Amino acid sequence: MAEVVDVRAKVLAANEEAAARLRGTFRAGGALVLNLISSPGSGKTTLLEATVKALAGRLRLAGIEGDVATERDADRLRAMGIPAVQILTGGACHLDARQVRRAIDEAAFPAFDVLFIENVGNLICPTSYDLGEDFKVALLSVAEGDDKPFKYPAIFSRAAVTVITKADLLPHVSFDLAAVRGQLATLAPSGAVLVTSAKTGEGIGEWCALLEARLAAKRKAGT
Amino acid sequence: MAEVVDVRAKVLAANEEAAARLRGTFRAGGALVLNLISSPGSGKTTLLEATVKALAGRLRLAGIEGDVATERDADRLRAMGIPAVQILTGGACHLDARQVRRAIDEAAFPAFDVLFIENVGNLICPTSYDLGEDFKVALLSVAEGDDKPFKYPAIFSRAAVTVITKADLLPHVSFDLAAVRGQLATLAPSGAVLVTSAKTGEGIGEWCALLEARLAAKRKAGT
Repeated sequence: MAEVVDVRAKVLAANEEAAARLRGTFRAGGALVLNLISSPGSGKTTLLEATVKALAGRLRLAGIEGDVATERDADRLRAMGIPAVQILTGGACHLDARQVRRAIDEAAFPAFDVLFIENVGNLICPTSYDLGEDFKVALLSVAEGDDKPFKYPAIFSRAAVTVITKADLLPHVSFDLAAVRGQLATLAPSGAVLVTSAKTGEGIGEWCALLEARLAAKRKAGT
Repeated sequence: MAEVVDVRAKVLAANEEAAARLRGTFRAGGALVLNLISSPGSGKTTLLEATVKALAGRLRLAGIEGDVATERDADRLRAMGIPAVQILTGGACHLDARQVRRAIDEAAFPAFDVLFIENVGNLICPTSYDLGEDFKVALLSVAEGDDKPFKYPAIFSRAAVTVITKADLLPHVSFDLAAVRGQLATLAPSGAVLVTSAKTGEGIGEWCALLEARLAAKRKAGT
């Protein structure tokens, strides 16, 4: 239906406008903003919990949690001492920039250095919606299998950083890390790839160092 | 935007019509048709491979594989000796009934007893699109975490059967099976829940018995 294409184009154009305004707001605040995208259960919230612990107050963090239902993820971040707001999409398969704007306005967060926007668990729909972020982070758990980058090329080609999660499960699953690195090198030649386990702490230091470096680079570029 | 709601209603109505025609076709053929829905990497194709092996020619099977990209899943079923056709959605986050109709027409499958329609890896979008199936099967891998039914209530309330997969990983992950059973009992009181591992074979016999029983019931009701 041509109608579907027209309406989709209008929705995306409206989102681009809202995202551009959000990006201006974030730039003025000097904060780094990440849009985290993955399948359900890849460990987005668990990575954030490990990040909070590892940074131990070195950076001021805040979180926006997108879900179809339940306040569970925002509650998990608040339990870690991080200001967090939950967006319930009520069935929609992704966040959009206007929802993030409303959440930011309502949350009235204290000043923050890094804002994590945890998108709805979905490897497809969130890809097309700019949220004013500095960059997208794709997560892939080793339990999901090593064929996923080529099966979901849009997100893995647009993510500046891919975080492989649950590396502690590698001895127990069939997951060819070299094959995944090969697919990612094809899809995102300049992207970073980190191998992590929130359980053992593997790669969490490298992830935190990446956040600090990108925040410093953003602030330097902004001065 | 009211426009979005209108177009979505039209798309769903057109899908309902196409699904009703498909259901008629499937009824005439006397085959059982399943719509398998889960996150990416929950093990849909791996469950089908284990099913083919376990049934060992007792039932004639066929597969329709939905993916954004790659022919990989149809290739895996063909390698098991099962006629299979791949639908590439090219970015769309779910299958629809008209795609399934075209795939059925083009595939010209030999006669089959059970048709597996493996939807695009996504816990949200496929839920609203009837594909003419007898029932929906939701899969949830134990690696995805025990909070998923309440976070994605639409699919887990509409699935007649929920298959917990990768039970072999239970010793290595935090997954409260009783909590998941409790959530499923709330969302789908009359639904069946199976705990399986394609790796160890746990629950695969029960799953195959369920398929045989539902096929027999459908054929009995149709006579």
